[in-house]
Amino acid sequence: MSSACLSMESRASAAPAPRALPYYVAFSQLLGLTVVATTGAWLGLYRGGIAWESALQFNVHPLCMVIGLVFLQGDALLVYRVFRNEAKRTTKVLHGLLHVFAFIIALVGLVAVFDYHRKNGYADLYSLHSWCGILVFVLYFVQWLVGFSFFLFPGASFSLRSRYRPQHIFFGATIFLLSLGTALLGLKEALLFKLGTKYSTFEPEGVLANVLGLLLASFGVAVLYILTRGDWKRPPQAEEQALSMDFKTLTEGDSPSSQ
Amino acid sequence: MSSACLSMESRASAAPAPRALPYYVAFSQLLGLTVVATTGAWLGLYRGGIAWESALQFNVHPLCMVIGLVFLQGDALLVYRVFRNEAKRTTKVLHGLLHVFAFIIALVGLVAVFDYHRKNGYADLYSLHSWCGILVFVLYFVQWLVGFSFFLFPGASFSLRSRYRPQHIFFGATIFLLSLGTALLGLKEALLFKLGTKYSTFEPEGVLANVLGLLLASFGVAVLYILTRGDWKRPPQAEEQALSMDFKTLTEGDSPSSQ
Repeated sequence: MSSACLSMESRASAAPAPRALPYYVAFSQLLGLTVVATTGAWLGLYRGGIAWESALQFNVHPLCMVIGLVFLQGDALLVYRVFRNEAKRTTKVLHGLLHVFAFIIALVGLVAVFDYHRKNGYADLYSLHSWCGILVFVLYFVQWLVGFSFFLFPGASFSLRSRYRPQHIFFGATIFLLSLGTALLGLKEALLFKLGTKYSTFEPEGVLANVLGLLLASFGVAVLYILTRGDWKRPPQAEEQALSMDFKTLTEGDSPSSQ
Repeated sequence: MSSACLSMESRASAAPAPRALPYYVAFSQLLGLTVVATTGAWLGLYRGGIAWESALQFNVHPLCMVIGLVFLQGDALLVYRVFRNEAKRTTKVLHGLLHVFAFIIALVGLVAVFDYHRKNGYADLYSLHSWCGILVFVLYFVQWLVGFSFFLFPGASFSLRSRYRPQHIFFGATIFLLSLGTALLGLKEALLFKLGTKYSTFEPEGVLANVLGLLLASFGVAVLYILTRGDWKRPPQAEEQALSMDFKTLTEGDSPSSQ
């Protein structure tokens, strides 16, 4: 009986991770790194590589966007699934920091393409890719600010946080999916502008870019799968359970469901 | 006390729909119909309209795909949120039928583009749009077949259905999102092939197609929001609750969590 108590105690302080989760996370990371490597290979093999000066400045844009708004943004969403038994605050700070890194790298990618357009006298913001891109970038920034003020800034009440949390999760996943869609549109645009009708002759660059497109979509599906599996959600820690019980006791009288 | 009992009984047989749900559903339908109308306007104003013979046969493709794999597929996903108090079997049949209609309309759209390519000697299946399209179409068919054999064919056990349900929902939503992504890639392709560098001069067709792209993405976000809101899920009916309790009693001894 004492061994049963011990096992219950140790479970409360560090719940075991679901058995399959680490394999799915490893697979998603492999996919994410393959996406970054394939983007690098595409830019290196068929676009002359990367530089801040010269025509190669354009190539900074796709690489930064894939590293920031695809790989790092995706990984930031997975933080709560991977670090299941760390203190909630540590996990929150890591989640927020990964998004900051992603944002800064994406900002460099954004500056690169506007600077490249300006130097070459090209028009800005005429394509569907650019409209989606600006929208996603603004939404990403707003989502970060609102998330920070609700969850990391000490002002918001527990009740306010609980009500905002599902919205934050939904819009976080949505912005990630919109980022992926925007990346696919950009890839297609870069491809059609250069290859034109040669695209239909199965040029090696076209085939590689198509594979990159499928990899981008697969990374999105993998992250979404890990994120939405009900039994893989982060278990509430002892400290949060206590808080949540306090909260329940405090608000039971005026909860919306009882009206 | 008898009035309290009465209210509990009537709640069990017909739970009231969440107050905001009908407005969100109406908004999603307005968005979906606007997407179909904008596609029609684009094809009518800038592409010469629709016909099965002549060069206009290509235009059958985008229209059928938007009606079938965007609007009808999206609405099929919402069936369980909209028809909350119908018998489960009726709702299932409606869900399956809407997907059949969507599939048939998409098949016509697929035949149209392959027939158009054949008549004009164009290459098939070289673009990222076409790769994604074929993948989505095959996945959609497989998902329907597996869904039918698990949920409508009488063979599958209750336990098997319960285990497959979350997978069916995840892959259903994923295939819907991939359909939207594929539609955006196709729109971009059709635009760049025709406009080329004129795209950057804010041609009216380019602007209309960009708006159509944003509308397609917005419809996806609206459907996804309604689908994922936890408190909008269909409540289990009396008949299902009874079954689920039977199931619990039957399997409590060998449930995976007790091992």
